[in-house]
Amino acid sequence: MKIDVLTLFPEMFTGVFNSSILGKAQEKGIVKLQAINFRSYANNKHHTVDDYPYGGGGGMVLKPEPVFAAVEALCEQAEEAPRVILMCPQGERYTQRKAEELSAAKHLVFICGHYEGYDERIRKHLVTDEISVGDYVLTGGELPAMTVIDSVVRLLPGVLGNETSAVTDSYSTGLLEYPHYTRPAVFRDMKVPDELLSGHHGNIEKWRRQQSLVRTLERRPDLLETAELTEAERKWLADYKKMNNIE
Amino acid sequence: MKIDVLTLFPEMFTGVFNSSILGKAQEKGIVKLQAINFRSYANNKHHTVDDYPYGGGGGMVLKPEPVFAAVEALCEQAEEAPRVILMCPQGERYTQRKAEELSAAKHLVFICGHYEGYDERIRKHLVTDEISVGDYVLTGGELPAMTVIDSVVRLLPGVLGNETSAVTDSYSTGLLEYPHYTRPAVFRDMKVPDELLSGHHGNIEKWRRQQSLVRTLERRPDLLETAELTEAERKWLADYKKMNNIE
Repeated sequence: MKIDVLTLFPEMFTGVFNSSILGKAQEKGIVKLQAINFRSYANNKHHTVDDYPYGGGGGMVLKPEPVFAAVEALCEQAEEAPRVILMCPQGERYTQRKAEELSAAKHLVFICGHYEGYDERIRKHLVTDEISVGDYVLTGGELPAMTVIDSVVRLLPGVLGNETSAVTDSYSTGLLEYPHYTRPAVFRDMKVPDELLSGHHGNIEKWRRQQSLVRTLERRPDLLETAELTEAERKWLADYKKMNNIE
Repeated sequence: MKIDVLTLFPEMFTGVFNSSILGKAQEKGIVKLQAINFRSYANNKHHTVDDYPYGGGGGMVLKPEPVFAAVEALCEQAEEAPRVILMCPQGERYTQRKAEELSAAKHLVFICGHYEGYDERIRKHLVTDEISVGDYVLTGGELPAMTVIDSVVRLLPGVLGNETSAVTDSYSTGLLEYPHYTRPAVFRDMKVPDELLSGHHGNIEKWRRQQSLVRTLERRPDLLETAELTEAERKWLADYKKMNNIE
C-alpha cells in the first residue's frame, strides 16, 4: 500500500511514521509512507496556499489550485486512481468498519488542512472520502490523518506480529474488553481476582465474558444492541440489570 | 499548564510537540509538554514493563508498579494532584465539552499503553479519567494523547492568535460549518456561488446559515436536536425537508 499525506507540516509526521508498527511496516516493505508539503505546488510568486474567504469573515481558506496540482501529480505516478481523503469535522464519523474498508485500497492520499477551511471545490470535485475522527476541534488534519493511517496499516497482512493480534481487540467482538491483570498477584493490598488465579479455564472464560458484558453495559450500552450474544448471556444480563436496578 | 505523557515511545511526540500551535504555546510559556519513558521507572533487572496476563490468553499486560511509580514521581513535584488520564477504547467518548473541562486543569498526566492491556489496578486506583477518541482500534495511546493535548492546548488563553479563533469553529455553534470559497472566482469551470460574490452582507449571512443547516441535516442530523435554532430556522428546515422528501 502507498500512503501520501499532503500537509503544510510534514515534520509532524517524522516521529510517528518511523516508530513502532508504522516504522516496522515500512521496513518490511508492506507500506510506503510519505508526507508532502503541498506548498511546493503553489504556482504563485510567494507560494501562497490560502486566501481570504469570499463573503468575508475570519479565518483563511485553502486555495484550490495547489491541492488539485499536488493530488494530480500523485495520480500521474499511480496505476489506479487513489482514494483521496479529506480530514475534516464535517466528514463521516470514522469507525473500525471504515478502517477495514480503507485497508483494501492500494493507494491513499490524505489532505490535511491546518487552521483554515478548505475551498469547497476541493471537497466537491477532488475528494472521494471526508472523514472526521470525532466531535472535537483540532488545529489541523495531521493528527487525524496519523490516526487513520495507524488504524489502517495495522490491519494489513504481515504487519502485526505474534505479540498482538487484530482479532482480540475491542470492537472486534462487539463488546468492550474484560479487565486484564498481571503479576504481582498482590500490589499494595490490591489483589488480582480469585477467578483469574484459579487455573480453571472454564471459570476464567466465563468471568471474562461476564466482565465484558458488565463493562459494556455500564459504559457503552449502545454496543449491546448490535453485539452477538447467546440466549443465556441475554438472560444473565437481564438478571444483572434487575439485581442492580439498571433500566 | 503542565502536561506529562507516560509512554514507551517518547520519540513519537517530538515532531508534534514542536510544531504549529503546540510549539508556539510552549515558546510563549503557556504550556510545558513532556514525554517520559516510564520504562525508566521499572524497578527490576531488565526494566520490564509488561508481563503475561493472569488467566492466560494472548497479548501482554502493563504491570502496575512502573506506572504507579512514574505517576507518583510526577505528583511529588506538583502543587496539586494532577488529572491522570488513561487513553483506552473502553473510556468515555471524547468530546469538545471534555476538552473544555480539561483545559481548566493545571496539570494533566497521560498514560499511553502500546499493543498491550493495562493491569486493572492502574485503571481502578490511579486514573481519574479514561478517554476514548473514537470507535476504532489503534496501536497505542500515543496518537489519542496527542489528539487530546492539541484540542486542550488550543483552548488555553493566549494560544490562538488572530489568524483563527476558537469561537467560529465547528461544534461551537452546534452546527457543521458552511462551505468556504476563496480566489479564483472561477477555477476550471468551477464557480464560487453568486451569493458570496454579491457583496450583500445580509444575503451572505443568510446563505451561510442555511448551508450550515442543510449540511448538518444531511450529515449529522443528531446535532440538530441540540443546536440552538430560531423559530424561523426551524420552519425553513421543515420546509426544506418536505421539499426534498427527507424524513
